[in-house]
Amino acid sequence: MNLKKVAILGPGLLGGSLALSLRKNAPDSRIAVWGRRESAAAEVREMRIADIASTDLESVVHEADAVIFCMPIGHMRALAERVAPLLSPGVLVTDVGSVKVPVARALAPVFQKRARFVGSHPMAGSEQTGLAAARADLFENAACIITPDETTDACAVADAKEFWALLGCRVFALSPHEHDEAVALISHLPHLVAAALVKTAQTEKPAALDLCGSGFRDTTRVASGPPAMWSEILRENREPLKYSINAMIENLHAMTTLLDSGDANAMERYLADVKTARDRLKISPNQ
Amino acid sequence: MNLKKVAILGPGLLGGSLALSLRKNAPDSRIAVWGRRESAAAEVREMRIADIASTDLESVVHEADAVIFCMPIGHMRALAERVAPLLSPGVLVTDVGSVKVPVARALAPVFQKRARFVGSHPMAGSEQTGLAAARADLFENAACIITPDETTDACAVADAKEFWALLGCRVFALSPHEHDEAVALISHLPHLVAAALVKTAQTEKPAALDLCGSGFRDTTRVASGPPAMWSEILRENREPLKYSINAMIENLHAMTTLLDSGDANAMERYLADVKTARDRLKISPNQ
Repeated sequence: MNLKKVAILGPGLLGGSLALSLRKNAPDSRIAVWGRRESAAAEVREMRIADIASTDLESVVHEADAVIFCMPIGHMRALAERVAPLLSPGVLVTDVGSVKVPVARALAPVFQKRARFVGSHPMAGSEQTGLAAARADLFENAACIITPDETTDACAVADAKEFWALLGCRVFALSPHEHDEAVALISHLPHLVAAALVKTAQTEKPAALDLCGSGFRDTTRVASGPPAMWSEILRENREPLKYSINAMIENLHAMTTLLDSGDANAMERYLADVKTARDRLKISPNQ
Repeated sequence: MNLKKVAILGPGLLGGSLALSLRKNAPDSRIAVWGRRESAAAEVREMRIADIASTDLESVVHEADAVIFCMPIGHMRALAERVAPLLSPGVLVTDVGSVKVPVARALAPVFQKRARFVGSHPMAGSEQTGLAAARADLFENAACIITPDETTDACAVADAKEFWALLGCRVFALSPHEHDEAVALISHLPHLVAAALVKTAQTEKPAALDLCGSGFRDTTRVASGPPAMWSEILRENREPLKYSINAMIENLHAMTTLLDSGDANAMERYLADVKTARDRLKISPNQ
């Protein structure tokens, strides 16, 4: 895959980290960043993380080999309609949105026959936001899920895999629907649960929050993430998420039953099984 | 308070960290560590973190100014009955157990008129266990809850506060009952929820666990903790914990209702309120 020029649309935490990571892993690529506001483009120029940083979409995507949408899902469609006429058919178009059925629905028809679109979701982020939190190593060893469906160009899939592998990701492929079910369980449910844990303590005994240790801090870390972004993600993935919430509630009821049974061995076995699964997670500690 | 000699009973993560922290913060104190097994006492000697390390209870507690029980709650009563006759009335006796009503019930009568007992709970720990994971800074900036009841000697409370403050803790006082309600919300419920999150993903879509990012890693970190220890803690604090689980389930139902309402502003406000509360937590990042 040719990567003489990469266009990053949206200079937030992910867009900025993408620029830094490309600089490190593809030093010969020219990096162009588009920002909606002139102040955002100016910040990219001050940080010197791109060759071009502009609010002018045409100059940013001109002759780009890959175009990456790095913005809230709700903004993608309108921008895609402006971008599509500017691209030649071989260009890889992808995004970093956290929910893929709505992204595929919004973007695939716009790029049909105009560029090679496939969705991506690098499982990397932070409760922090914005360009200032961007890191060159954000994608290293992160899982990245490519989400082709039956209409996706095979070259787009191959190129997207190559692109994310170049940045150090462990690359997987799932349909948009399978992806959304998986992330409901491993990302959106944990987020909502973290928020509900804070809410529960705050409602039942607010003074208890002064006594927290590192366990509460880590279990609820994601609840410090940006509310507007997460509100959109949770709503966009509403149906798989509701299914996951119900499964979680069932498991909480099962634990109450286990507590009521007074069966120490059964509780220890339950926790030991969970520990085995959790210890197997392939996430590097500095990811 | 006099701290010429401190006896630590149980050389695990907390006992070992206590020895290291005392060495740092009270360099003139003699530190004696009791281990049930000779191999445990030998490990303490090899690590040179105490002046005395032995399986002989009498030599460890002899002339100690403070005695700290650092072992599973279920083992405390039997050991206390061996320790009590060896102590003079002025000695501070405390413990680091995670549930305080059962500890007060087990230990207070044993030390009545024989030493000054009050429970303590430093909110410090890790998913790791054992002496090898001990750290001199484990208690720095940690909250430590002293748990006097109406029978507790006022000097014991003052001494226990001074002891934990010396190690860098932010010291609070709550009755054993209030303590158990608070930690059900900020420690035991988060633990059980972390376990249920792993269980839910594992049951619904095991392959999703390969795709996790740092959000899932942190939200579930405590689920890698020692199963036997946590099984005991959760069972010992069963009633407050069941109350907390029910409050959590109510909050999860409320979030489903919020998702169903399609009200983007309401969801964003909910997450913003939670973020405000969570950002206020007074836990240092390296705690």
